[in-house]
Amino acid sequence: MSGIVPVILCGGSGTRLWPRSRAAKPKPFLPLVGESTLFEATLLRCADSAQFAPPLVVAGAAHLAHVESQAPTARVIVEPEAKNTAAAIALAALRLPGDAVMLVCPSDHHIADCEAFARAAAAAADLAREGWLVAFGIAAKSPETGFGYIKRGEALDGGYRVERFVEKPDLATAESFLAEGGYSWNGGLFAFRADTYLEELETHRPALAQAVREAVEKGREDDARFHPDAAAFARIEGESVDYAVMEETSRAAMVPADMGWSDIGNWPALRDARGADADGNVVHGPAELVDCRNVMVESDGPRVSVIGLDDVVIVVDGGEVLVTTAAGAQKVGKLSGAVNQ
Amino acid sequence: MSGIVPVILCGGSGTRLWPRSRAAKPKPFLPLVGESTLFEATLLRCADSAQFAPPLVVAGAAHLAHVESQAPTARVIVEPEAKNTAAAIALAALRLPGDAVMLVCPSDHHIADCEAFARAAAAAADLAREGWLVAFGIAAKSPETGFGYIKRGEALDGGYRVERFVEKPDLATAESFLAEGGYSWNGGLFAFRADTYLEELETHRPALAQAVREAVEKGREDDARFHPDAAAFARIEGESVDYAVMEETSRAAMVPADMGWSDIGNWPALRDARGADADGNVVHGPAELVDCRNVMVESDGPRVSVIGLDDVVIVVDGGEVLVTTAAGAQKVGKLSGAVNQ
Repeated sequence: MSGIVPVILCGGSGTRLWPRSRAAKPKPFLPLVGESTLFEATLLRCADSAQFAPPLVVAGAAHLAHVESQAPTARVIVEPEAKNTAAAIALAALRLPGDAVMLVCPSDHHIADCEAFARAAAAAADLAREGWLVAFGIAAKSPETGFGYIKRGEALDGGYRVERFVEKPDLATAESFLAEGGYSWNGGLFAFRADTYLEELETHRPALAQAVREAVEKGREDDARFHPDAAAFARIEGESVDYAVMEETSRAAMVPADMGWSDIGNWPALRDARGADADGNVVHGPAELVDCRNVMVESDGPRVSVIGLDDVVIVVDGGEVLVTTAAGAQKVGKLSGAVNQ
Repeated sequence: MSGIVPVILCGGSGTRLWPRSRAAKPKPFLPLVGESTLFEATLLRCADSAQFAPPLVVAGAAHLAHVESQAPTARVIVEPEAKNTAAAIALAALRLPGDAVMLVCPSDHHIADCEAFARAAAAAADLAREGWLVAFGIAAKSPETGFGYIKRGEALDGGYRVERFVEKPDLATAESFLAEGGYSWNGGLFAFRADTYLEELETHRPALAQAVREAVEKGREDDARFHPDAAAFARIEGESVDYAVMEETSRAAMVPADMGWSDIGNWPALRDARGADADGNVVHGPAELVDCRNVMVESDGPRVSVIGLDDVVIVVDGGEVLVTTAAGAQKVGKLSGAVNQ
């Protein structure tokens, strides 16, 4: 039995981590937690050759240099433009044998418990081999309104059928999910056989499947890089794998995953993924904090002196200064600095 | 009758306005309110030759370059070291005719209403000519605990006897002063004849008076500069004019002054001295504020983006970043950056 193929998606822009994350060097390629970049850590989690085959990376041309410097030996599919996850995964599926089990991983998430990840990956791969399209159901720790949810159905061997996918809920709904139980977060990690995925895509999004197939047939190889045909790829209407396939198929399953996952979706999420001191403060770079609690400081050089604040994030990076409440951090991506890069 | 002689004291270090105010270029020499520096504005308030004689500046050697670039024609007494206000004023008094009426002005305060200042100066000078040592009693607008207070006594022509000076009170005491009435802030502005001041100093601090006299006798002139003798000056025990003279003399008077005065003693005070927008925000430099109220941003270049904050001061200056609540701003002078300059 051949190893699981990690399919690493490098699509996200991460504008909500501006000014640290920039269009030219976005979130996956930054060492936000620990020494490795999020992309490197994603690869490291899938590096055990007893379980995993070599990875296949899908990335935009703009970030190819980052990919190749951080993963020099990886095979890369270079997207001519961003067309969301359904197309990105289809590109990978078409470049793999039909019976390959793909493990689709976003490259900009943090997972604290790598052993739990490996166990969930093994369970997901087992279900995938049986023909299921498997989502990771991330243990829901709080009533987040920024994630989609998965309601689990009847038990399978090592997982559950998906009863339904739920789009981002409002707070009251999210709270009822936690109270009711049986709901987990949809973390954007999936496992399926390449042929299963392509069959489902063909059934539910035939035009998309056809355009990707043509882009691959007309594509060209360049050592470890593969370049799909730009004209064919341009015809694609971008859709997420969730919408195009997972919510449509009757073969959706989920495996529970309680693995210290975070999408590092904004500055407070990054603060929480890092270790805080006794006052809840998290400091990277030169700083002096007086009478502060739950303050995050991230500076690429200038000293940051802070007095009397609670639950505030301060970022100094590349000549930009951001100061936001934790609650306000959702709006970072809409700031002029983040939008007009 | 000759004009009032403005005696401009340039002693303050202004560490509570760090990182904008630095040891090498402290508060008086910065354009903190409007286009002029506080020092220049102090001179401008005393520029009407119908009322005022040319000024006499007392400054430390370290700041002589700032003084001479901002006031090229002023006579300057160059203090060999800082010995507080009683000595600084005595230096000036000894360099003036005995019957000169001195108007002692700190160089780092803001006064919004210059006409009210001129009226108070005229009233103070009239009392000074009669032999009174006159303090400006600043209209107390709030129960500040950072200022000394003056309790007024019986009425004089154009002012009052001082019943007593009160050191910085606690909040409850300050509130009782405002409720009771008859108290004003001691703003550090004084008027007296040179000979009156020297007589009182001789009476209450004979050693200090003697040391200053010797420093002047052994001093040397250098065009518009006068250099007191460093060895004699070094013997002085520095004391404020308040302690050494005003609280000791039986000839203390005060003139009420309601003139939009601020000592710009910390960042929120500067915020309040500047004009705020409809949300109470005060911005100097490139900035974007979202959902903010009563936020002050001061940047010497980098853009500052702020979300969701209330009553916070953010200063970016010379590679230092300060973020403080208004209440915490009292501690700015104790930050490592401010202390270890």
